Parts: sequence; C-alpha cells; structure tokens
Amino acid sequence: MPFELTILGSSSAIPTFERYPTAQVLNVLERFFLIDCGEGTQIQLRKLKIKIGRINHIFISHLHGDHYFGLVGLISTMSLLGYKNDIHIYSHSELKTLINGQLEYMKGELEFAVIFHPLNMKKPQVLFEDEKVVVSSFPVKHSIPTCGFLFREKQNLPNIKKEMIEKHRIPIKNIQAIKEGADFKTESGEIILHKNLTTPPKKPRSYAFCTDTSYYEPIIESVKDVDLLYHESTFLNDKKTLATKTLHSTAEQAATIAKKANVKQLLIGHFSNRYKTLDGFLTEARNVFPETYLATDGKKYKVKPV
Amino acid sequence: MPFELTILGSSSAIPTFERYPTAQVLNVLERFFLIDCGEGTQIQLRKLKIKIGRINHIFISHLHGDHYFGLVGLISTMSLLGYKNDIHIYSHSELKTLINGQLEYMKGELEFAVIFHPLNMKKPQVLFEDEKVVVSSFPVKHSIPTCGFLFREKQNLPNIKKEMIEKHRIPIKNIQAIKEGADFKTESGEIILHKNLTTPPKKPRSYAFCTDTSYYEPIIESVKDVDLLYHESTFLNDKKTLATKTLHSTAEQAATIAKKANVKQLLIGHFSNRYKTLDGFLTEARNVFPETYLATDGKKYKVKPV
Repeated sequence: MPFELTILGSSSAIPTFERYPTAQVLNVLERFFLIDCGEGTQIQLRKLKIKIGRINHIFISHLHGDHYFGLVGLISTMSLLGYKNDIHIYSHSELKTLINGQLEYMKGELEFAVIFHPLNMKKPQVLFEDEKVVVSSFPVKHSIPTCGFLFREKQNLPNIKKEMIEKHRIPIKNIQAIKEGADFKTESGEIILHKNLTTPPKKPRSYAFCTDTSYYEPIIESVKDVDLLYHESTFLNDKKTLATKTLHSTAEQAATIAKKANVKQLLIGHFSNRYKTLDGFLTEARNVFPETYLATDGKKYKVKPV
Repeated sequence: MPFELTILGSSSAIPTFERYPTAQVLNVLERFFLIDCGEGTQIQLRKLKIKIGRINHIFISHLHGDHYFGLVGLISTMSLLGYKNDIHIYSHSELKTLINGQLEYMKGELEFAVIFHPLNMKKPQVLFEDEKVVVSSFPVKHSIPTCGFLFREKQNLPNIKKEMIEKHRIPIKNIQAIKEGADFKTESGEIILHKNLTTPPKKPRSYAFCTDTSYYEPIIESVKDVDLLYHESTFLNDKKTLATKTLHSTAEQAATIAKKANVKQLLIGHFSNRYKTLDGFLTEARNVFPETYLATDGKKYKVKPV
C-alpha cells in the first residue's frame, strides 16, 4: 500500500525556471493529501497526472503567498471539472477572509463545500483521523504563525500465520479476535497462544513537513523517529545570519534537526533562488546527516517500511 | 522600434499540459503592457526572460479567475524583488475588493503603490496615453462584464529627406516645424514645399485583444483595420450552440469578425481543453480569413508596419 510523497514545488518565495513555489501531494494508502498550494499547483498536478478530484484535504502551513496563492485556481478548476466532493482546508483562520471573496465571485455555483478548519498555531492538534491514518499539526517558528504537519499510519494489528489457520482449523469468525490479542482453543481443547499464531505487523510509516521555519528545537520532539522529514533549507550556512533574521533555516540546521530527531531520511527544499546549483545544500546537510536528499519538482519519494 | 506580442497563456479556463491560462505581454516601443494575468503568469515571464520590473501597466479583461489569479503572485514577487515603480491595474472595479486583502497581508510593506483604475464596462475609454502610444478599452460580450483592449501607436510626423537638408542647407531649428507641416524658405528666398521636403511617416501599428467574448458585431467597429487582432476561439463550429450558451466564440466566428473588421492578421486562442489538437481551429478560421494564426504559449508575434 502506497506511502508516497510527490514534490510539486520546491522553491522559496520567488519561483525559478525549474522550481515552483511550495506544494506537495502525499499519498497515504490512497488518501491524497495536498500540503501547501503555491501558485501553479494545479498546473503541476495536471502535468504529473495526479487526479485533482482525489484531493479533498488541503493543509496550508502559513499565509505567505508562495504557500497558498494556487488555492483559488485549484478550487476553481475543481468546480469547472464538475467535482462534487467537499474540500477541507486546514489553515490559519485568516485564510478564509483572504480568499472567500474570490470563491464567492467564482462563475457558477460551486457544487461542493469549501470547509475551513482553523489551525491551532500554538500547540499540536489532530486534524484528520480515519481507521488507517492520523494527520496532526504542530507549531514551527517563522515570521508569521506557521504549522508543521505530521502524517502517520496507524499501528496495524498482527498478521495471523496462514499455516496456523490450516493446522488448527481456525474458523473465520475467530480471526479478528486473535488479531486483537486472543489465544485460540482447538477442537481438542488445546490452547494455542496468540504470540504463536501471529507475526508482528509492519511498523507504521510516517512523514513530517516543516516549512517555513527557523532552526527551532521544539520541532525535534514533534517529528521524533519519523521515516521521512521534509525540512526547509532556504539558505546555506554562509547565510546563517540572514536565515536567522528571516526565520528560515540553513541546510546544516535542517540536518541537525533530522539528526537530533532520529528520523530515517531527510528531504530538504524551499531553496532560495539566489543559488544557481543545489550541490552545496546536499554536501552541507550530509556532513551532519548522511541520509539527506534534495526535493526536486516532479519527483516522487517513497516512504519505505522499515 | 518593437511592436511585439508574447503569448504567456493561451488556454481557456482549465490549463492543460502545454497551455497556461490567459496572459500576454505586448511590447510597444519598449513599453511593456501585461494583458490579463492568469495563474502562472510570473512563472512564464521568468521562463521567457521578460523582465518583471518592466511591467507597470496591467490590463484585466474580466474577473473570471483564469484571467487574474496570477496577479497577487506577480505583485508579491515584484515586491520581493525590491521593485519600486507603481503598478497600474485597469480592470472591473470589483477586482480591488477581491484581492486587496491579500495585498495588505503580504509580507513586509510594498515599496510601490498598486493603483486600481476602474474600467468603464459599457463604452470605449482611453486608459493610457503618452507621446507615442494610446491604450483604450471597449466592451465585448461575455457572461460577466468584459472589455477588449486596443493598443495603437500614434501617427508619426513625416520624415525629412536627408538629401533635402543638405541641398537646401536646412538648419536644425527648422526641422521640427517642417515635420509638422511648414514649407522652407532657402537663403535665396526660394520656397520649398513641405510635400517635397518629406516622405510620409510609417503607418502607426495597432493591436486589439478580445477575450472572453461571444460573436458580437459591435466589436467590428472597435477593432476596424488593426494590424493584429487576438480574438478568442474557445470552440470549433460543431460546438456553436455551446459557444452561444457560454458566451464564447468559435474559430469561424473569430475569423468572421476579423474579416468584417478588415484586420491584417488574426491570432486565435483561449482554446477549450476538450480539443487534443488545434489543427481544426486553423482550418476552420482560414476558410473565412486566411491570415489566421494560432496563439502558442511562449511564442512571439511581431506586428509589422504595413
């Protein structure tokens, strides 16, 4: 079952020839979550053949334009394409004020509701939950209120060994109870222990998204042990003072967060357009955290089970 | 001196893999006019290496999102790049209400003013005029109030024949008066007539922009004799009923306007994404008006002096 991130845009505020502003799609078990929605997101979605109609939940980290200016265009296209599923937007409460006029002015009536869910910008919060997946937000530190997002699979139940079902003639009606921890009593009265009937489930996978943010140690606790961390890296270390001043991070700082949080892999992005090549980012981050990769527009990143 | 149109986007409301929503840049004698500003306009400008800082006048035909959703992103980038020249936006008065919240929310203070000039949606109006160029608007017919735009060079003065300056020893101080119609009296008292001293000036060039609009005969008068007409052609004639219903035009209708208005060349665009190739548009339009061309994203079209 997929747990896969697609980068739609990896640029910082000013888009470049190769990089759109921030937007990502995360496919968690066929749920398609859109994370930020910079200008051109709908164009990237179509280029990458990601079905716009599969997106019903949109998470906006903060209200700088490069993270949400693509939203009204996307919603407009969803409407023109005749979609009918409601859209849930998780963002700072102010977003509704900023774009509602444009939504209301749209041609024809939207045949779906756009439901705004205000983020708690000060403490962690569960935003979405179903039987398989939990999405939550947590504060990061930027020049305006900003949240990171955490996407987790829920812990699966153990798997029953196929050969034990046959050997002990376990009826289907008992399967769920055994998965949930029960032992099994055979026809002859023998008790087979739960632990002998099952194999442990796969470890749930997780992804965390942190942009825009300065180097901010409370993030470490929020993203502890995740399989993949996206952390902004607007600058290299030679612009550390500028990073501090603008509340952005350097590649080294992103890698330091990844290391201290014991994540499996780090993806860096939100690169300033002042850098003509990105080699320096990779070198600087890998000095601290070797499992670092560059976010590239259009590229997919699988979150692998451990 | 240039009179050149660059197509940034030629799609109708839903962008495609190859086509952005409507936006164009017209360079008239080094004045850069932006006409409509669909989502992704700033990305196209950067791709095509058109200097964003050269654009100070933006003309928005109407308030469907595919014609203005790129505006706040463009203004935001102008601000981030440190531009200081005021931006003049000519549009329906409602635009200010729709985007002002986003402009005010932008990071930092804009170091330039964004000045909104409300269009008269009911009758022709001069919007911009300097010593060389006049820009005006005129109503077209769509589902919401919409204007076309007309860009004209002013009539140049005649050119003085170089050989006559030498032959009759015409002093520099007399040149302007002769250009403006005066005869010249030589040292020996001979009167040389204006018409013998000059060659006629080049004919002023002109460009007209009409989208979105249904087939609307009053347009003919507004765009009479222009060198280049851009007229929308959302559909082919097999969807004429749909064109009428949605207040768009077919290729044949665009060509009919071009023919009746006696324009030199016709450029068609705003193609519906339902068409996989555009050959049909060219064939249908050229049957009526042979000098028809397809608008293509990224392509430049020179308006030639006749």
